[in-house]
Amino acid sequence: MRNIRLVLMYDGGNYFGFASQDGVPTVAGELKRSLKELFGGDIPVIGASRTDRGVHALGQVVNFQCPAGITAEKIASAVNFYLPRDIRVLLAEEAAPDFHARFMAKGKEYRYRVFEGEQVPYDHRLYALHVRRPLNEAAMREGAKYLVGEHDFTSFAQELTGDPVRTIHSIEIREAAHQMGRFLDFHFRGNGFLYKMIRTTAGTLLEVGSGKREPSEVDEVLKARDRRRAGVTALPQGLCLLKVEY
Amino acid sequence: MRNIRLVLMYDGGNYFGFASQDGVPTVAGELKRSLKELFGGDIPVIGASRTDRGVHALGQVVNFQCPAGITAEKIASAVNFYLPRDIRVLLAEEAAPDFHARFMAKGKEYRYRVFEGEQVPYDHRLYALHVRRPLNEAAMREGAKYLVGEHDFTSFAQELTGDPVRTIHSIEIREAAHQMGRFLDFHFRGNGFLYKMIRTTAGTLLEVGSGKREPSEVDEVLKARDRRRAGVTALPQGLCLLKVEY
Repeated sequence: MRNIRLVLMYDGGNYFGFASQDGVPTVAGELKRSLKELFGGDIPVIGASRTDRGVHALGQVVNFQCPAGITAEKIASAVNFYLPRDIRVLLAEEAAPDFHARFMAKGKEYRYRVFEGEQVPYDHRLYALHVRRPLNEAAMREGAKYLVGEHDFTSFAQELTGDPVRTIHSIEIREAAHQMGRFLDFHFRGNGFLYKMIRTTAGTLLEVGSGKREPSEVDEVLKARDRRRAGVTALPQGLCLLKVEY
Repeated sequence: MRNIRLVLMYDGGNYFGFASQDGVPTVAGELKRSLKELFGGDIPVIGASRTDRGVHALGQVVNFQCPAGITAEKIASAVNFYLPRDIRVLLAEEAAPDFHARFMAKGKEYRYRVFEGEQVPYDHRLYALHVRRPLNEAAMREGAKYLVGEHDFTSFAQELTGDPVRTIHSIEIREAAHQMGRFLDFHFRGNGFLYKMIRTTAGTLLEVGSGKREPSEVDEVLKARDRRRAGVTALPQGLCLLKVEY
């Protein structure tokens, strides 16, 4: 048996998240179905991140055990043959026997994409959160600073289980022009994120950007350790798992 | 009665083209249904371009007659309320009584978008043609030059009816970088285009770009006035009507 590591890209819009669930389409479900077509048996898959319903990925990492024979490179094209077009293997390679996509992940990078403008361009409607009113980037950057570092993120998590302490390495807000408005991409890098933490953080920062909250309130919310103090959980369509670091 | 001019944006992926057809979803069909909800009667709509099944628009222009009362600005938001989310009115204004979106159009600009790379990013899969092999831009630009000007475009049209002479003002190929490859946007400006002419021109230029044809063959194809000499008609998903000039 070999341990194979895949890098996956997907459009999460058609899936009930990464993790397998009976009776609904999931990314892991499609991957397992494809591996069964290829290898003939049930092969469990381990994903670095259990991305939520509607969340996208450019760099999800998965590993699974499979029989020797077919080369890792051929696995990529063979699995892609069976996968639906909105899920693609970008890379397949043989990993160390003890490689575990989830437990060995040291860090992750996510992007939360916002489109600011009167209307959202037709080709970004499904891949960005649409915001009509102008956002104050300086205020959002100021609010984001309170979150960088090691903190108890209870206020920003949902259905909390286990240790609520995580380290956010950086939150960058990148702007890109568009004829109909502009993109604001929030890049989050950290050692891990709690359930719905990025979308709730993005939602809270957007409330700062729209003037509904002061930047310093982000610090108060963080220190309160109370989910009711944070802002709304931003829609999943703007979120994308960019990268997993090992 | 007033003559109202709309600028429409749409994701063509879910529609059987702009023009109304019984039993299938069309852009004009959705617009007429929305106008009926708003004004209570059947209102014919005139579109500048009969965009094909699957073709997108950022600047389709439409006009229709409607009773006085509600302001043009309110028509935009009211029609948007009834339209599906993948069709949006960007602008509504009162036009001169004799304004005709189709017959008075003096020029149009279309974009044909290609993504060159091993895989197409998840958020551009439905809005660009995916090309794996590297394209030679210089060769495509050289081939495109033969098409600029007033010509008989019989070779690039399908189901030809009427005068096959059109004037192409310019064909520009614009490049934009992406971490997974690059975009090549073909911008076509002209006084009008025959049925499937842009997609067939794009398909032919892509054959030049991939080395399958010499740039000079574009001139031979043009002069032959024979559709069988041109390249394949490129998929509709890459095409977008950007602008109509009056």
